Amino acid sequence: MRAASGETWRDYTRHAFVEGLSDGSLPNAAFLHYLRQDYVFLTHFSRAWALAVVKAETHDEMLVASSTVNGLIHEEMMLHVGVCAEAGISHDALAATPERPENLAYTRYVLEAGYSGDFLTLLAALAPCVMGYAEIGLRLKQAAHSDTYQQWIDTYAGDQYQSYCRDVGAMIDSAVTRRLGEGYDQLPIWQSLCKTFRTATELEVKFWDMGLTP
Amino acid sequence: MRAASGETWRDYTRHAFVEGLSDGSLPNAAFLHYLRQDYVFLTHFSRAWALAVVKAETHDEMLVASSTVNGLIHEEMMLHVGVCAEAGISHDALAATPERPENLAYTRYVLEAGYSGDFLTLLAALAPCVMGYAEIGLRLKQAAHSDTYQQWIDTYAGDQYQSYCRDVGAMIDSAVTRRLGEGYDQLPIWQSLCKTFRTATELEVKFWDMGLTP
Amino acid sequence: MRAASGETWRDYTRHAFVEGLSDGSLPNAAFLHYLRQDYVFLTHFSRAWALAVVKAETHDEMLVASSTVNGLIHEEMMLHVGVCAEAGISHDALAATPERPENLAYTRYVLEAGYSGDFLTLLAALAPCVMGYAEIGLRLKQAAHSDTYQQWIDTYAGDQYQSYCRDVGAMIDSAVTRRLGEGYDQLPIWQSLCKTFRTATELEVKFWDMGLTP
Amino acid sequence: MRAASGETWRDYTRHAFVEGLSDGSLPNAAFLHYLRQDYVFLTHFSRAWALAVVKAETHDEMLVASSTVNGLIHEEMMLHVGVCAEAGISHDALAATPERPENLAYTRYVLEAGYSGDFLTLLAALAPCVMGYAEIGLRLKQAAHSDTYQQWIDTYAGDQYQSYCRDVGAMIDSAVTRRLGEGYDQLPIWQSLCKTFRTATELEVKFWDMGLTP
Repeated sequence: MRAASGETWRDYTRHAFVEGLSDGSLPNAAFLHYLRQDYVFLTHFSRAWALAVVKAETHDEMLVASSTVNGLIHEEMMLHVGVCAEAGISHDALAATPERPENLAYTRYVLEAGYSGDFLTLLAALAPCVMGYAEIGLRLKQAAHSDTYQQWIDTYAGDQYQSYCRDVGAMIDSAVTRRLGEGYDQLPIWQSLCKTFRTATELEVKFWDMGLTP
Repeated sequence: MRAASGETWRDYTRHAFVEGLSDGSLPNAAFLHYLRQDYVFLTHFSRAWALAVVKAETHDEMLVASSTVNGLIHEEMMLHVGVCAEAGISHDALAATPERPENLAYTRYVLEAGYSGDFLTLLAALAPCVMGYAEIGLRLKQAAHSDTYQQWIDTYAGDQYQSYCRDVGAMIDSAVTRRLGEGYDQLPIWQSLCKTFRTATELEVKFWDMGLTP
Repeated sequence: MRAASGETWRDYTRHAFVEGLSDGSLPNAAFLHYLRQDYVFLTHFSRAWALAVVKAETHDEMLVASSTVNGLIHEEMMLHVGVCAEAGISHDALAATPERPENLAYTRYVLEAGYSGDFLTLLAALAPCVMGYAEIGLRLKQAAHSDTYQQWIDTYAGDQYQSYCRDVGAMIDSAVTRRLGEGYDQLPIWQSLCKTFRTATELEVKFWDMGLTP
Repeated sequence: MRAASGETWRDYTRHAFVEGLSDGSLPNAAFLHYLRQDYVFLTHFSRAWALAVVKAETHDEMLVASSTVNGLIHEEMMLHVGVCAEAGISHDALAATPERPENLAYTRYVLEAGYSGDFLTLLAALAPCVMGYAEIGLRLKQAAHSDTYQQWIDTYAGDQYQSYCRDVGAMIDSAVTRRLGEGYDQLPIWQSLCKTFRTATELEVKFWDMGLTP
């Protein structure tokens, strides 16, 4: 799917916002603005992963999806709460952040794709966020980088997140072949799944754009 | 799908209720009881076909599904209203018919399959009712039969219903190959679709059973 | 709901795009661009009204919603096909119009609100488009205006569309009191419905903005 | 809601199956048959609670619902796995248990109510199972009873399950007043919620009936 998304994947994972995280040039106001929007995003993203539990067909699929919901609600969102608290933004203020249109567009696209489609369609819409952050975190960690946003980099480059992404990836591989067989990438439905993945990736690009304009 | 449903298809289309419609031995009380339950059924079945409009991917798929919703609400349900009115059952009484468990089970199964799955899953759950009635109507019409339930037989054997079923059939064929390609019946997902079709067929059998026990 | 949406309603119904339709100053390229996006919009809007059929509780609610689906698919979308054909844009080209982000955001918001909420939430998300166009059409028709976009004005100011909107409005009124009683506007849920209506109205404003930038 | 469900609540919580658990007269074959069906039930019930995460409006609502999903998947279902393993029924055999119609009817009713309605409708469909088991467990524990099914009684009478039910109850109370205000029980929508609760309770009765007929 990543290969099929072409330049869009690069636009997402090499976005100016990401480069600003790497060299530390991203203004703190932009980072905090992004974190607040991302908190709102993660609320809807948790709901979308909960929908994956509803649409799963096997116990293993249910386990990976429900673990993700827990990880998002109990850990990733709490990281944002912590960083924002240090910057003087209360949990209530964080939760009351007005949703930016780019945020609304992305989350509703994922949820609607999930409601209207099946488990695979939903996974295709969820994958760019999960996998892209792992790829970005690892690349930033492994290259020379400023320590300004070290905590952010460590979160996504860390063993826990990387290991989690491998589990999600293995589950997606297994879910695809379980339903479509080994020749899945020759089927017309594969093109639809790739299109969903690509659209979600485009919405990631716009989310970074939004992050640069507090 | 019909072939894959094995004996269940025969249990449905050759059910004692159907034979009672053919030879006229079905008690009128059972017929009216069935019609009342079927009116409640068609309300939910219309909703399920409306869900097919939501889940469609092409204009043609939308057209067939929305035409079905109209046909159900404006024509098939009105036939039941007419027959019941002649038997002294008012439209209000008809609409207030308490739903029998076999009815609830079938309609909620179809709707839930549609919500949780994609367009193909929903079609697999809708097909046994649409196609089975066409097959039953035609068989009864072409064989020697009592004229007691002639109007019912004529409805489903008639050109309008038969032509409608051919359109639905062509749309299903096209929807399947559009998503899964020509080798669709070699894919694991085909087994899931056949299982959904078979479960819906089993629920048709139970619906006839219920029809015999007013 | 309109009153509760405050200035947003005015931003929508008195948008520069609308004034350009009125005085004829809207460039034809912008109008055709808008029509093409609106065709894509109407596909998803039809799906959302079909979801209203699924979520309806009464036969009347089902009838109004399914009539809307038909009107959209068979009439309003066909108007766009006709106007575009005159401008040399084929039906295939129209259907293949790449979806703009503002379009995606609006339609997925409506559909997701409908999937996650109940019938009332869905109606609150659908209402701004239906009602706003009636209000805009009527205002433009009754004031001095250029005849450049006369056909557009006549469509939404015409008896058919105005009468249809009165039916939708009566159905919404009835649906709200049927569920929430006469004191509905004192309930917390009313604030949520107004918020949904307002967000959809904001997305209408952005849709007009998009229309001005082919 | 319990009061509004009338005799149905008593039919459910004082069912012959329950009395057989209490005095130990329930045949072991019926108990194991029930456990296997309940395992299938809990799969779908977990999916329905995951849908509650999707439909929640507050972080607290999401937390209660997602904790329930985890509790069901990781604890309650594992209890069944353990008991069945002791009786020589492997995990694979358990997961492959053919679904009985009473089971299908109940779970698809709950899921469809949740998909078509909002968070409150879904909670009304989920509540009878959660709350009824707590009430049954406590009553059996506090009265004289056989120790044949002591483990089952202890599970639902235990502090962990009782405490969990209080959390769910507090969340439901809060969710209702948050949306409908303090006078919620005077609203027409309250009657609909009570009807959903009652139908789910009726389906619990039929589930116990099924339990008695392995």
